[in-house]
Amino acid sequence: MSRSPGRKQENHKISRELFVLTYGALVAQLCKDYEKDEDVNACLDRMGYSIGIRLIDDFLARSAVKKCRSYSETADVIAQVAFKMYLGITPSVSCSSATGNEFSLILDKNPLVDFVEELPAERASLCYCNLLCGVIRGALEMVHLAAEVSFLQDRLKGDAVTEIGITFLRKPEDRKHRRN
Amino acid sequence: MSRSPGRKQENHKISRELFVLTYGALVAQLCKDYEKDEDVNACLDRMGYSIGIRLIDDFLARSAVKKCRSYSETADVIAQVAFKMYLGITPSVSCSSATGNEFSLILDKNPLVDFVEELPAERASLCYCNLLCGVIRGALEMVHLAAEVSFLQDRLKGDAVTEIGITFLRKPEDRKHRRN
Repeated sequence: MSRSPGRKQENHKISRELFVLTYGALVAQLCKDYEKDEDVNACLDRMGYSIGIRLIDDFLARSAVKKCRSYSETADVIAQVAFKMYLGITPSVSCSSATGNEFSLILDKNPLVDFVEELPAERASLCYCNLLCGVIRGALEMVHLAAEVSFLQDRLKGDAVTEIGITFLRKPEDRKHRRN
Repeated sequence: MSRSPGRKQENHKISRELFVLTYGALVAQLCKDYEKDEDVNACLDRMGYSIGIRLIDDFLARSAVKKCRSYSETADVIAQVAFKMYLGITPSVSCSSATGNEFSLILDKNPLVDFVEELPAERASLCYCNLLCGVIRGALEMVHLAAEVSFLQDRLKGDAVTEIGITFLRKPEDRKHRRN
């Protein structure tokens, strides 16, 4: 899909309530389809992955972000540019490992759960927003960054904040390069 | 869900690409779940209805639209305020009956199908965007307007435009009132 550079940013903007409710319908449908929370979570992650590998082109075209030079810079771009662009929020970022490849995105508020009071008792293991992890994983893979992405904390489950963990998987050549 | 009146409009805005791709994932899942297009269409309509009856509060709060005095005014508000707010487009409206209760929304472009090339041959009867019909029907019902809403034309099926038909169902007391 090509976009003319002169096209106004505003054209891409919509009200998020319809999205949030449509996402809720998707999760509800998967909960009908799969008995186990783990299967729903895996399905949301797969769907997100498929979305991420398509969304990355749109992101690169509209954000005009250049190649990141470090995992830290990449995590910042995800939080400050991508989340802002697609969900209208800016999570804070913290590096959670001495090795510099593990990061946490902390979401003070999560628009995707705007209309969700709490998870039903029988769905205690559901990662309601797991689609987001898949989207991040898919998008990163398209810029040749392998990563594991998962929810570490979730307000819907009673945690104080919502936290998405991103672990960049180092490539063998990275390690070789560092030894040289 | 309460909203403080001072909250900035901008907070509600997101980029629509994530929504469009998520909607695509929802339709794809329903196509896995249901063999018949008619069942997918009905399910999308039901989901949309559930969304519409929740979305109406958000719409009334943010649009500050007053009570409409005619079906014609209602159709204009749907096209010019609601579609603009939730999908970033403004369909044109035409009244398609002498009795003044049938309207068409003509969508020159439909952002929901941005990433869809064409329907697969085995899904020729799928109303891909049928969720929208349910949303309109549900929202109208919450303001005490019964209506039938369906796609009359669809570019995805080779039609020249995409057209949503809205038929307001007259209430018995309306007819009585008119006779007096």
